[in-house]
Amino acid sequence: MKFAVTLALAAASFALAAPASAQSFQKPEDAIKYRQGALRVLGAHFGALGAMAQGKAPYDAQAASHHADVIALVSHLPWHAFGPGTEKGENTRAKPEIWTEQAKFKEKSEKMQEAVGKLAAAAKTGSVDQLKAAFGPAGQTCKSCHDDFRREL
Amino acid sequence: MKFAVTLALAAASFALAAPASAQSFQKPEDAIKYRQGALRVLGAHFGALGAMAQGKAPYDAQAASHHADVIALVSHLPWHAFGPGTEKGENTRAKPEIWTEQAKFKEKSEKMQEAVGKLAAAAKTGSVDQLKAAFGPAGQTCKSCHDDFRREL
Repeated sequence: MKFAVTLALAAASFALAAPASAQSFQKPEDAIKYRQGALRVLGAHFGALGAMAQGKAPYDAQAASHHADVIALVSHLPWHAFGPGTEKGENTRAKPEIWTEQAKFKEKSEKMQEAVGKLAAAAKTGSVDQLKAAFGPAGQTCKSCHDDFRREL
Repeated sequence: MKFAVTLALAAASFALAAPASAQSFQKPEDAIKYRQGALRVLGAHFGALGAMAQGKAPYDAQAASHHADVIALVSHLPWHAFGPGTEKGENTRAKPEIWTEQAKFKEKSEKMQEAVGKLAAAAKTGSVDQLKAAFGPAGQTCKSCHDDFRREL
């Protein structure tokens, strides 16, 4: 479990290592594609972990921990790509409220990061019950933000 | 630098923590979007780091290390999404050779992972010269794989 523990430590400290100006984008479209890419990766691992947490896929402790570690790390990436000037783009589902209610958006992204940090710790225990207990609250933070800040297709 | 060092250790051990069956996708399109998302994130951070390495953007040691750490971690993600049945899709630039020359494709992805691991270590030294020295070889591994396995637009 040494590797997984190391990765969890890294995830917990990742935000601190990321400078505020970590990324700038040439074009608004680049930022939109970046954040969509990061959220896509996040969603895929979250879906795979959720299938295990909900008994729709066989529980595999090592795979669960891997998914949760990736989620915890990638959870820090999308947010800086919602900068000024990236409100509109061909395929963005971002609602204008992201820019008009920035404090709320930031708070929700931070709650998500906190919840998925706990999820990674739970996954690492190897207990499916702990995974289940942590998965619901983490999923709720995703849903809460999507409800407020993501347009329906 | 404690955080960065921790993250680098994590990056180095990430592949080991990832089980072979880490991810399955409901539809081929999901796999295509996942790998495109991961590669998009990779490319954005690589571009930002390259701008510093090539003197097109001011050198910021902390930002450079952050970019290199993200690259090292995400470099492990895209490959399992090139599974059987994901050869064709609306926007994929994947060449058929990925599936007909799997050993070569795997070797190139592993060379890239090795090179970006070194890049992360170089970025962590805080020396722009070390960053420059490691950036070229890492960029070459990207290009080499794209030349063989990615269609032109």
